Amino acid sequence: MSFYDKLKFDLNGLIPAIIQEQGTGRVLMMAWMNRASLEKTIETRKTHFWSRSRQKFWMKGESSGHTQQVRGIAFDCDGDTLLIQVEQIGAACHEGYKSCFFRSVEDGGEFRITEAQLETPEEIYGKK
Amino acid sequence: MSFYDKLKFDLNGLIPAIIQEQGTGRVLMMAWMNRASLEKTIETRKTHFWSRSRQKFWMKGESSGHTQQVRGIAFDCDGDTLLIQVEQIGAACHEGYKSCFFRSVEDGGEFRITEAQLETPEEIYGKK
Repeated sequence: MSFYDKLKFDLNGLIPAIIQEQGTGRVLMMAWMNRASLEKTIETRKTHFWSRSRQKFWMKGESSGHTQQVRGIAFDCDGDTLLIQVEQIGAACHEGYKSCFFRSVEDGGEFRITEAQLETPEEIYGKK
Repeated sequence: MSFYDKLKFDLNGLIPAIIQEQGTGRVLMMAWMNRASLEKTIETRKTHFWSRSRQKFWMKGESSGHTQQVRGIAFDCDGDTLLIQVEQIGAACHEGYKSCFFRSVEDGGEFRITEAQLETPEEIYGKK
């Protein structure tokens, strides 16, 4: 049986994909895939997503060079979430942090940045 | 500034929460929170979610005893996903696996189970 038969895309045809760095176990980001972007991810071994805000298909790293080489794809018991192991080139986050989860909640509901910024967005994408 | 001000709940008032085991880095599950379940999670340090299928507020482990003690809460650059570090009691998955992501895609699109089942659902929830 193909694993596609086990997947449930939502009403918009999307499924969330958690991206984890294989070597470190760090969760880098979460983004959404439609079936076409998942097929492209499997075919090319580079992650491709569907941007809900831009309504556009994109390859991670197409602007920044910070691509993700796919090392494994798992899916959950309900078939409605993917977990993808990758090797990450550079920062996963468009704000220049290794992980998009660079802020943590403190006691009292404040938050703090928990890691170093590797690059500024200007360094990654050039001045706008 | 409160971290709540940085969060974006979706049109249904929900935000996805990735649950990661602190000690091992394993991603255990993903589930959805509304603001009330997030507040309850922070107040009690046990994960609480909103079930979209049952339209019901629930504490992880309320039936199974497999609760999650919260050790840290991070949120992503867009403020639309949570990453919660926990200590997991027993299996996180209702099918009796440590992680809900117990199946991985093989070359050719088949899949296989990649870990041992710790308990059967009957052992966890009793015979129905």
